[in-house]
Amino acid sequence: MSDDRAGAGRAGLSYRDAGVDLDAANRAKARLAELVASTRDRNTLSEVGAFGGLYAVPDDVEAPVLVASADGAGTKLKVAFLSGVHDSVGEDLVNHCVNDILVQGARPLFFLDYLACGEMEESVVAEVVSGIARGCRANRCSLLGGETAQMPGFYAPGEYDLAGFVVGVVPRGQILDGSLVEPGDVLLALASSGLHTNGYSLAREVVFGRMGLTVDDELPGVGESVGHALLRVHRSYLDSLLPLVSQGRLHALAHITGGGIPGNLPRVLDDGLGAVVRRSTWEVPALFRVLQEGGGIDLTEMDRVFNMGVGMIAIAAADQAAHVLSTLRDAGEDAWVLGEVTDEPGVRYEP
Amino acid sequence: MSDDRAGAGRAGLSYRDAGVDLDAANRAKARLAELVASTRDRNTLSEVGAFGGLYAVPDDVEAPVLVASADGAGTKLKVAFLSGVHDSVGEDLVNHCVNDILVQGARPLFFLDYLACGEMEESVVAEVVSGIARGCRANRCSLLGGETAQMPGFYAPGEYDLAGFVVGVVPRGQILDGSLVEPGDVLLALASSGLHTNGYSLAREVVFGRMGLTVDDELPGVGESVGHALLRVHRSYLDSLLPLVSQGRLHALAHITGGGIPGNLPRVLDDGLGAVVRRSTWEVPALFRVLQEGGGIDLTEMDRVFNMGVGMIAIAAADQAAHVLSTLRDAGEDAWVLGEVTDEPGVRYEP
Repeated sequence: MSDDRAGAGRAGLSYRDAGVDLDAANRAKARLAELVASTRDRNTLSEVGAFGGLYAVPDDVEAPVLVASADGAGTKLKVAFLSGVHDSVGEDLVNHCVNDILVQGARPLFFLDYLACGEMEESVVAEVVSGIARGCRANRCSLLGGETAQMPGFYAPGEYDLAGFVVGVVPRGQILDGSLVEPGDVLLALASSGLHTNGYSLAREVVFGRMGLTVDDELPGVGESVGHALLRVHRSYLDSLLPLVSQGRLHALAHITGGGIPGNLPRVLDDGLGAVVRRSTWEVPALFRVLQEGGGIDLTEMDRVFNMGVGMIAIAAADQAAHVLSTLRDAGEDAWVLGEVTDEPGVRYEP
Repeated sequence: MSDDRAGAGRAGLSYRDAGVDLDAANRAKARLAELVASTRDRNTLSEVGAFGGLYAVPDDVEAPVLVASADGAGTKLKVAFLSGVHDSVGEDLVNHCVNDILVQGARPLFFLDYLACGEMEESVVAEVVSGIARGCRANRCSLLGGETAQMPGFYAPGEYDLAGFVVGVVPRGQILDGSLVEPGDVLLALASSGLHTNGYSLAREVVFGRMGLTVDDELPGVGESVGHALLRVHRSYLDSLLPLVSQGRLHALAHITGGGIPGNLPRVLDDGLGAVVRRSTWEVPALFRVLQEGGGIDLTEMDRVFNMGVGMIAIAAADQAAHVLSTLRDAGEDAWVLGEVTDEPGVRYEP
């Protein structure tokens, strides 16, 4: 900090001198009000600017159970910084959070964000929140509040961190907790759109480090720029899967995030159960193959860091699998039979 | 990144080489399970490790409305880093969030945290979460989940960011939204314990910059070390105020956070209403006076950055004020009549 801005002599300090601009914060808030309003629904009771957001518990849900999840956008943000594209990471985050509660049978009610930066750039804040609002509208969830924190000395210029928090609801009798899963159940894979929100520290090391590429370079074999390929938006599976959940067609769902299939599928398998995943059932998308080759990464490490093209796994009884698969395809999903549940613990890959 | 660790030749990359240690993350998770379990209540349905946390909507609340709020610990964290004290900022954050929904009449149900760091130090993560769990237990709120994010390149070594999300519930008929407030209503102040969670960028600039002190130095005129004075835990007013809210004794509550009294009190005053705050009714605590003198800060700037010793303002009808005041004092609060509501917009300070 310098005294120069404050005029002659040894001037008194203000919050602005200390790096916090309350006026910029207030202007940003005003710009966000319209975005937030676009996500309201009939249960949203509060206006922007209240201390807390108000949301009526829906009165049409029997024995309502709230399902909540917190997540961060992770180092995918670094790709956004390099690309100067700030309006998609919010959608990534909303979709990630929505998928995390969908796997327990819940539909989202509302979302709150936490956006932290060093110095506040109003236009960047507005872009980030526009992505959050778009994601909220697409998932029919209300952006109920959030915090935009100015933290001088925490973040590099032009950088920020972004976290989100979702609350959904499920009728108590429809909670998916894995207890229905049995040996012989079928694993149905739903394709991812790219890396989703996981493995970016390793992917960046490969692409920008080992391969020496920039965000504007074409990613060899992928047919698009590095920036586009790495910023592809994390998909929400809400619309495809919620009807099947409500009809009781599924035994479990596993969102394939950090830890990959081996780290996430066992979270919905009871003790004593395991799974066979057959590699021949799908072609790993080019993006993952490029990362593996570019970084000389072991396949085992690839499997536990990246989704490898599988964004979500639905588990259904064998006699439901065909119906579930055709319903998913009718909904526009690229879906396939990935393998099955076994009575041998752990995830075993087979050719 | 260096290839040395990976042995001879140009080795393949792993997630760990890229700065993310999945094993450390899993060990930290195991340590946190016990802390999280200590905050469970009869409505907490999920176990640690589920994708989302499950919480049954309490069945004894009429027309339940959820109240949610997100907040960050702010740059108070820098004082924690300098002091090496990591077990109180979590409690600050929980109490801040609980107060933010209390002002709308809600009691907390559950809390989720977001903790982001560059490299994960398991002991620091455990200390931070122990503070969160202590805060949750004290406010009878369940720590339902959270995200511990490893973000190489985002945070300086030894630093982290911490945000929290709370969800509470209020019967629809008991929502406090300021609509009951009338001219002539009495403002009752509840003392803060220190800076709470606001104004730290300016306070640090004064204490560590202008005054050249370290966290271990005694803060002149305050009678304790800089570290102790600046880390005093943000108070929760839940136990003192919730009974009065439930009895319908209050017209409104304002949590005095960033923006001070002038920034927060008007948030619960309808258009056309304002307030008189009488400076003679309380002695501004020594900490604030030291900051003002040390930084040569205008009183107006002090008022809009710091709470100045007032952590919460309760607004009650004139004929309820004496009862509310004695109830608050019986509950152990340092409380006093601060001023009154007027029909002249804005906050006016009087001697």
